[in-house]
Amino acid sequence: MTLRFPEKICTVLVNLYEYFYFINIQDQSMKALFFDSRLRLLDLPKPDRSEGQALIKVIMAGICNTDLEIYKGYKGFKGIPGHEFVGRVECCDNEKIMYKRVVGEINYGCGDCYYCKKGLKSHCKERRVLGILNHHGAFAEYLVLPEENLHIVPDGISDEEAVFVEPLAACFQIIEQLHIKPTERVIVLGDGKLGLLATQVLDLAGCDIFLVGKHPSHLSLSQKRGIKTSLADDFDDMKADVVVECTGSPKGFEMALGLTKPKGKILLKSTFVEKREIDITPLVIDEITVVGSRCGPFLPAIRALEKKLIDVKPLIHEIYGIIDGVKAFGKAAQKGVLKVLLSMG
Amino acid sequence: MTLRFPEKICTVLVNLYEYFYFINIQDQSMKALFFDSRLRLLDLPKPDRSEGQALIKVIMAGICNTDLEIYKGYKGFKGIPGHEFVGRVECCDNEKIMYKRVVGEINYGCGDCYYCKKGLKSHCKERRVLGILNHHGAFAEYLVLPEENLHIVPDGISDEEAVFVEPLAACFQIIEQLHIKPTERVIVLGDGKLGLLATQVLDLAGCDIFLVGKHPSHLSLSQKRGIKTSLADDFDDMKADVVVECTGSPKGFEMALGLTKPKGKILLKSTFVEKREIDITPLVIDEITVVGSRCGPFLPAIRALEKKLIDVKPLIHEIYGIIDGVKAFGKAAQKGVLKVLLSMG
Repeated sequence: MTLRFPEKICTVLVNLYEYFYFINIQDQSMKALFFDSRLRLLDLPKPDRSEGQALIKVIMAGICNTDLEIYKGYKGFKGIPGHEFVGRVECCDNEKIMYKRVVGEINYGCGDCYYCKKGLKSHCKERRVLGILNHHGAFAEYLVLPEENLHIVPDGISDEEAVFVEPLAACFQIIEQLHIKPTERVIVLGDGKLGLLATQVLDLAGCDIFLVGKHPSHLSLSQKRGIKTSLADDFDDMKADVVVECTGSPKGFEMALGLTKPKGKILLKSTFVEKREIDITPLVIDEITVVGSRCGPFLPAIRALEKKLIDVKPLIHEIYGIIDGVKAFGKAAQKGVLKVLLSMG
Repeated sequence: MTLRFPEKICTVLVNLYEYFYFINIQDQSMKALFFDSRLRLLDLPKPDRSEGQALIKVIMAGICNTDLEIYKGYKGFKGIPGHEFVGRVECCDNEKIMYKRVVGEINYGCGDCYYCKKGLKSHCKERRVLGILNHHGAFAEYLVLPEENLHIVPDGISDEEAVFVEPLAACFQIIEQLHIKPTERVIVLGDGKLGLLATQVLDLAGCDIFLVGKHPSHLSLSQKRGIKTSLADDFDDMKADVVVECTGSPKGFEMALGLTKPKGKILLKSTFVEKREIDITPLVIDEITVVGSRCGPFLPAIRALEKKLIDVKPLIHEIYGIIDGVKAFGKAAQKGVLKVLLSMG
């Protein structure tokens, strides 16, 4: 008896150890899409959280054109891509956001430089950008971000809507940078995801807005909202005070130049890998202003979604599980496909 | 006797006819530089004046980089080039300017279109531009311009100074378009004629200004005014809030991009024939604003010259007679040569 008892204890202890070890392993790893020269689904360690950062369990993430550009070599990024997400805080220092459903601003800076001190962390030279620059992104079951980057998502906004906060914020940046007057004529060039969102945002400014694109099915989404649209090839030469370039193509800049009135403004949204031969003399002759525009303010985007001023749902093409992430990327890269989402659940 | 008298009368009449015919011919023709595929000095008819236009006897004209670009094919111009001038009104409808010494704005529009009605005649689609577009220019003994384009030159401004009003106005357009704050760092890129003038104008704004160029002798002109300068190759990477691109070279835009802080502004002054391959993604990432800038307001330029706030005389390289106009063009095209003037006197 005296011998058999410790044996039993040992067996139980060994079983318990193995059970918890297994749980621990499970607990420490996550599924993630990883990109170096190619994209694959891997089991990777869950990211470590530093002080002031939150560990977030990703609920849903969106595939953006920048992700597709990363695939072509943009910024030489290697790691887990993805920067549009909604998730739930699983661990952090700040009680107010613990276990909350959140979206997150994607840039964080060094905190010490001229730009960080001016509140322009997205222009810090040492910045990291979620899924784009020196920071693993949202195409994974977990990510970490500084707590100060997070915004709680109100209950009235679904997961499918919340995942659009980041690109919608980028569209609100247009009216943060430019005063769009209600008497002005505005052309949005490009009927992809960003163009369709930007058109909705600019339409709120009361301006005379026109969406010019290449996909009748996309244009019809704007038409349903009463917005004038045209196929690029059919478009007459009615020029605009403001042209918002969302084509995602190097050709877009020259198209925008051709559609902008003298003394008008071009807002550039597209980023891409290729250079292009451009004649910039018309900029000088017509005294046109070109404004580069990147990430934007989250709060207006959240408010607009909560008030149902913007409808993002028609932009969703398909939702894939993370397990089919590589397939989802392939789908997102197809011509004419709008937003492809990844669900981590 | 009865026969001899009419003979004498006839001879006198013939002589008188020939004399007045000769005077008339002399009076109707003028020396002018004419460009089609090449530049030559011709005797051409004096220009006809329409109602509302003034016939101006040109005193002096300046050769500008745009004239040199015309030589390379810019805008396909054929005719008498030249748009920087000072002259004296010889014939007009408006008494107030009759026989006055004047300078002239170079654009005039149709008067009926959207732009003309908004006071933006320089952007009228049907506009004519002195010596650049559908209107003979100032490299001649006479020119015509609408009376409303003319500004009387105060006595305190010499002919050599007055001929700089047009390019100086183009420099005042920079501060007409952009609010240059005294706390901002400004780089002027290019130490040619326009860059040196722009530097003087911007220096008046109280900003921390830097001229970057390629010609030690030109840079020294700014140094004498207490302005910081640097040779382009020696310039460190101190970036600026505003970069004013006056290089006259297609490379200038990319150089400007590299010298502009995130959220900064580039003001483009150069026009040229060539296209160039440009990577515009940095514009988007750094959210840079690019502003094209062309002709400017004459009155501030006249005021600044009258108050001796701007010193244009060190920019004069040489003054040629119109008879040596082709030679003057050759000189102006030489590297490192600043302003070459043509005197019609």
